[in-house]
Amino acid sequence: MSRDSDCVFCKIVAGEIPAQVIYKNEFILAFLDTGPLADGHLLVIPREHFALMTDLSSDQVGRLTGILPKLGRALLNVAGAEGFNVLLNQGPSAGQVVPHLHFHLIPRRSEDGLGYRWKAGTYAKGRAGVIAAAYQQALSKPSS
Amino acid sequence: MSRDSDCVFCKIVAGEIPAQVIYKNEFILAFLDTGPLADGHLLVIPREHFALMTDLSSDQVGRLTGILPKLGRALLNVAGAEGFNVLLNQGPSAGQVVPHLHFHLIPRRSEDGLGYRWKAGTYAKGRAGVIAAAYQQALSKPSS
Repeated sequence: MSRDSDCVFCKIVAGEIPAQVIYKNEFILAFLDTGPLADGHLLVIPREHFALMTDLSSDQVGRLTGILPKLGRALLNVAGAEGFNVLLNQGPSAGQVVPHLHFHLIPRRSEDGLGYRWKAGTYAKGRAGVIAAAYQQALSKPSS
Repeated sequence: MSRDSDCVFCKIVAGEIPAQVIYKNEFILAFLDTGPLADGHLLVIPREHFALMTDLSSDQVGRLTGILPKLGRALLNVAGAEGFNVLLNQGPSAGQVVPHLHFHLIPRRSEDGLGYRWKAGTYAKGRAGVIAAAYQQALSKPSS
């Protein structure tokens, strides 16, 4: 199993840095974020070091996310939340700080001031079709 | 396969409402969000109607997310993005508007003004351990 000797999450997996681990299995670890956006804010990581979500195979991402329904139910119960966000940030421009991929589970309540900055636009006529065609072409390549 | 006759995403699955579909398989559909936060903003949904992510089994969430690495790579290419967010909102208080669970893939660039409102706190001494113990207890129940 690959690890990065400088990675803080790899050190948590190895038990070299303490963390409030709430669940683990062969593939993943779930623990409390030490800088929580709300009480009970969780992180879910693969035990093996992968910097980016796009580095995973389909099977690997499935093993990582398979725990999300169970963790989500526990979060609603434990954090007394009305809902939650599941958030993954890929790349520094998207907010990824630790370069070991991780899903956030963020407990939510009405009027808690959290959430995504939502600035929805619209596509000019014809533009959505052009973008969709580009996606279809990219996804049709065997290597994609 | 269950559907909800009032659900806009079920109508897209059935072809009753048009959408720019960029990928589909037996279980899922991926298409352009018509109110994009950035060009190339994608939605990924299960073809079957489930209101909430916590309604899925581990296998079902794995089938839904297995496409995320491939879609993420296509997005970086097609949208010319530096990174992206994967976001799921569960419940109205978390920002869920359409009650058919969906993952957003949101293309990101530096200084684009998007992202999660990040107001990290800290746990008072002992508090994280109490919350972690509550999670461990919740997760140890067979029904959880």
